Amino acid sequence: MSRNNHTTEILKRVSGPEDLKKLSMRELNALSGEIRDFLISTVSNTGGHIASNLGVVELTIALHRVFDTPRDRIIWDVGHQTYVHKILTGRKERFNTLRQMDGLSGFPKSAESEFDAFNTGHSSTSISAALGMARARDLKGENYYVAAVIGDGALTGGMAFEALNDAGNARTNLLIILNDNGMSIAQNVGGLSRYLSRLRTRPFYYKTRESIQSLIDRRLPKTGRHVRRFLHRIKAAMKSILVPSMFFEDLGFRYFGPIDGHNLRELITVLEHARTMKGPVLVHVCTLKGKGYKYAEEKPNVFHGIAPFEVETGELKSNGGESYSEVFGRKICAIAQSNPGVVAITAAMPDGTGLNRFRESFPRRFFDVGIAEQHAVTFAAGLAKGGVIPVVAIYSTFLQRAYDQMLHDVALQNLHVVFAIDRAGVVGEDGETHQGIYDIAYIKTMPNFTLMAPASPSELEMMLEYAVMEHKGPVAIRYPRGTGRETDALGQPIRPGKGLAVRQGEDVTIVAVGYFLDRALKTADLLEAEGISCEVINPRFIKPMDESLLRQSISKTGRVVVMEDGIISGGFGSSILEFTSRERIQAETLLLGLPDEEVPHGSRKLIYEKYGLDPQSMKDRIRDFLEASGEGGREWARNVSM
Amino acid sequence: MSRNNHTTEILKRVSGPEDLKKLSMRELNALSGEIRDFLISTVSNTGGHIASNLGVVELTIALHRVFDTPRDRIIWDVGHQTYVHKILTGRKERFNTLRQMDGLSGFPKSAESEFDAFNTGHSSTSISAALGMARARDLKGENYYVAAVIGDGALTGGMAFEALNDAGNARTNLLIILNDNGMSIAQNVGGLSRYLSRLRTRPFYYKTRESIQSLIDRRLPKTGRHVRRFLHRIKAAMKSILVPSMFFEDLGFRYFGPIDGHNLRELITVLEHARTMKGPVLVHVCTLKGKGYKYAEEKPNVFHGIAPFEVETGELKSNGGESYSEVFGRKICAIAQSNPGVVAITAAMPDGTGLNRFRESFPRRFFDVGIAEQHAVTFAAGLAKGGVIPVVAIYSTFLQRAYDQMLHDVALQNLHVVFAIDRAGVVGEDGETHQGIYDIAYIKTMPNFTLMAPASPSELEMMLEYAVMEHKGPVAIRYPRGTGRETDALGQPIRPGKGLAVRQGEDVTIVAVGYFLDRALKTADLLEAEGISCEVINPRFIKPMDESLLRQSISKTGRVVVMEDGIISGGFGSSILEFTSRERIQAETLLLGLPDEEVPHGSRKLIYEKYGLDPQSMKDRIRDFLEASGEGGREWARNVSM
Repeated sequence: MSRNNHTTEILKRVSGPEDLKKLSMRELNALSGEIRDFLISTVSNTGGHIASNLGVVELTIALHRVFDTPRDRIIWDVGHQTYVHKILTGRKERFNTLRQMDGLSGFPKSAESEFDAFNTGHSSTSISAALGMARARDLKGENYYVAAVIGDGALTGGMAFEALNDAGNARTNLLIILNDNGMSIAQNVGGLSRYLSRLRTRPFYYKTRESIQSLIDRRLPKTGRHVRRFLHRIKAAMKSILVPSMFFEDLGFRYFGPIDGHNLRELITVLEHARTMKGPVLVHVCTLKGKGYKYAEEKPNVFHGIAPFEVETGELKSNGGESYSEVFGRKICAIAQSNPGVVAITAAMPDGTGLNRFRESFPRRFFDVGIAEQHAVTFAAGLAKGGVIPVVAIYSTFLQRAYDQMLHDVALQNLHVVFAIDRAGVVGEDGETHQGIYDIAYIKTMPNFTLMAPASPSELEMMLEYAVMEHKGPVAIRYPRGTGRETDALGQPIRPGKGLAVRQGEDVTIVAVGYFLDRALKTADLLEAEGISCEVINPRFIKPMDESLLRQSISKTGRVVVMEDGIISGGFGSSILEFTSRERIQAETLLLGLPDEEVPHGSRKLIYEKYGLDPQSMKDRIRDFLEASGEGGREWARNVSM
Repeated sequence: MSRNNHTTEILKRVSGPEDLKKLSMRELNALSGEIRDFLISTVSNTGGHIASNLGVVELTIALHRVFDTPRDRIIWDVGHQTYVHKILTGRKERFNTLRQMDGLSGFPKSAESEFDAFNTGHSSTSISAALGMARARDLKGENYYVAAVIGDGALTGGMAFEALNDAGNARTNLLIILNDNGMSIAQNVGGLSRYLSRLRTRPFYYKTRESIQSLIDRRLPKTGRHVRRFLHRIKAAMKSILVPSMFFEDLGFRYFGPIDGHNLRELITVLEHARTMKGPVLVHVCTLKGKGYKYAEEKPNVFHGIAPFEVETGELKSNGGESYSEVFGRKICAIAQSNPGVVAITAAMPDGTGLNRFRESFPRRFFDVGIAEQHAVTFAAGLAKGGVIPVVAIYSTFLQRAYDQMLHDVALQNLHVVFAIDRAGVVGEDGETHQGIYDIAYIKTMPNFTLMAPASPSELEMMLEYAVMEHKGPVAIRYPRGTGRETDALGQPIRPGKGLAVRQGEDVTIVAVGYFLDRALKTADLLEAEGISCEVINPRFIKPMDESLLRQSISKTGRVVVMEDGIISGGFGSSILEFTSRERIQAETLLLGLPDEEVPHGSRKLIYEKYGLDPQSMKDRIRDFLEASGEGGREWARNVSM
């Protein structure tokens, strides 16, 4: 099933939005097909968010046709659906560098183009940002349009509602495009979704309503206020027959829709009309995720964010063994099998987190709450309080959204909620907005919390078993994206707060968090070859830390190197400094991790190299550190320990 | 205007909810009056949240009358309105210990009573928690009711919407009581609020709708599916005439309301009815904040959370000078006066944050977004991107809700948003859920952020001027609750990243964050009297820290003590350890701050004493620290610095 039946004739003539304005409707429609081919052939090589972009081809063309970008501002919620936007705004030549280091970002970036009005990445921010820009514009007496494009999935995120609530009451001109594909990442959930799907079944509402209104306006004489108010009520009544309700109008928006999101003429007409309206306007556009590529239409969740794939078959080009997510998904099912009190929660990501298997096996014990991390966590707190054991699986970067709920609802109440923190550490191609490098720093500060990191897939299984079945109180396990390697000497059972010395040595103690153990051991091999003897510790527990193990080793070596896949500032290394300082254990310390800056996109391998976190670089850095410390370190340690 | 015209005759007979079930309607009404008197006389002495509690007297009585607590669970959103609940559930004898150390908490606490089903404090969590409990109950095959009581203000918080969205689609029995007083803390804002006020103008909806329905049911023959569907539409149409819309029903709830929240008979009738319903039910109750106490009815925002006051006059018993909030409010107005690009944002707290003056002076540049911290911050990011300078004033504890927005929308985009973080540090009587002790730990980890803490009110003014007018990029200023003292030697202008050595000394460097400088100087006096010479540093900037100043001082003294009104773990002291370790500056270090545990309620003075943070205790701790360190510390430092 090849889609390459289009030329790129028209696309070649489009180097910016101004070129769209010269095209006929027939040419614009042909352009849609060309863009789809271009998307499929490029993303099948780079990987990326293909399904959502195939869904917004016409919408993106219509927006750039109707609005005067970059003067007018378009804010793309989440931002993974901006590939078409990038192609149309002068970046098609660089499009093959998508998501690669120093190449185009997979998300909007103001630094990359003036057409990217606001950087996004996490869901549900666009209405807030758009309202801010609109109000700044009004205050400055400027005169441009601001539009936010938000999916129906992102609309379930609470902050989108906070913004709707504020914007609906604002007298500022603001356009919200609801890109409704009936999906967030997986199938959408919740009352709002059900409501939207009722709206979607009324495809001609826009025209019908307008004609009823004009009918009433023409036929009935306007004889005073009383009659007008009655007419207003009749109109409201008619409206509620035509559409199930007026959710958005209740919040203060003028609502237009639903519109066929793949009908360019209709889109352009409605956007032209919306452009003339005063105040906040919401245009409800229905699109098909994956539109125009059979495999993506059939499995939009699989093609949401995808690795490179074969265009002809829709199959992944490579399949690299069982990922940490899959290990988690398999193990949590095994635990749940024998423990009916275990339930699982996802915030709209049953596939990404590996919980799809759990959903199938235990549908009554599986809860997809939508893109709603805050609710997910406090909901879990309620479940725990109600006597079951909730396991919340969320990517590290998205869990940031629930910082307060983890602290306020779970930690302070000391509730037994298990957090499976996926995509912890450097995530690679999704880049700076998606890095999972803050979780150690913020979770370790929350009272009552236990935080673990497995060094290998099998250790993840053991930790999960421990966290769910033995531990009481808040507990989190952080593990990385992708597959893991098994390491020797990890088979010992998990004991609360206990780490393992996996290699004995004399000159330096290396404490390696989670799967960095593997590269710590490689680094130790390299150092050994240079005559430096390394003790390597797998702490297992970031909090509480294994103080006796660390004391023993650090007192012996007098130098400690901490390796972690997270920010250095406030990270695990910082905890070790607090410990050694408090306990007056003299040790020179080297902290290896991510610096205090935006960590960009690119393959994880290249990002680790950039920050000197590959074994070769770490070997050099540790050798330099040891050389600079001279003999002092070990001497001080002996003074104290003797 | 004395309210003490009631006896406590009936209240004396109520030692638990079961006693309510024995009372006649007349007695229950009399009890309402008695409870109001009891509330006013007690809270006028203890201080606390009086207005909201006066508003829920009848509602609380009705809930405990209808439901079988503690078997049935009532979850109070925010929880500051649980005084009546506490009085009715066996805690009236201890009620005079309210908010005092080791006394009753001002919020629900499971540890205090089995009637407190879930601990709350921050807004908008109750529906999530209630849904969790309800689903746990279903899974365990148990059989009790779960009710969440949430204000219309709390409903603007996004996570409440996330939970409504999930709960509305759930087939579980769950009761949401919307306690609608038209207020959050200040006057409520936003589209939802306007919608609710439209609902409120229809006081007889509940009865009217029922009678229309029965009318239709009786008069028209049911002749097949088509007619039934038509009737359903007619009903929907009638409904939309009777009430402006069906917001909650769109989300999947059965809606009852609005109900007069001060009519006990109506409340009990409706709650009895709601109790029999299946699935999620929302009962809309209208109450008057401050009901029954003239001054609180007139100024519910002033009487929201209040210090001890005179019952007869409604005046505060003491008034202690200009608070930091007032200094902020005054200064930001002065800055805005000469800089039209400065705008201010609050999340429903114009009074608490001191922004009420700004609102009056610059109404077009003032934005109250509702209880919606997430939106507040990303909205500010949009404003900054649009070219104005937003100042976001939020309490430290509530800013936790916007962790991700600060990081993802402000920090990563390096936008010039100014955060005025009020109530930083120990807050006192509001207790563990409200402590502002995490902000240093989490903000310092965010790239591009600058974080300052003023040592005095006048330094706050200087920092604000600097942050708004000179600084570029994300910047936060944290300052405490209450009034401050001026300290000598602070008059020097703010220079980026520069601190001040405010006292010279030889034996130890004391680094005191913000207003702890005052107690650091007192501690230094006490130490001086024992022959210990202290250098005292006001760092001004927590991030970036003044490395050259610290290097100079610590290299000289070889010992450093960090004093901060925040958690030790990951706090400013921890940053100093990272710095000295990285720079190989040998120094023994003592970190003074809050430990890794729930910090309870009580006066700030007592809390500081409990944690050894009063000058006398700190003097002793520093002396012990210096004695234990012996002469070693200074020697190591000399080895390195020479």
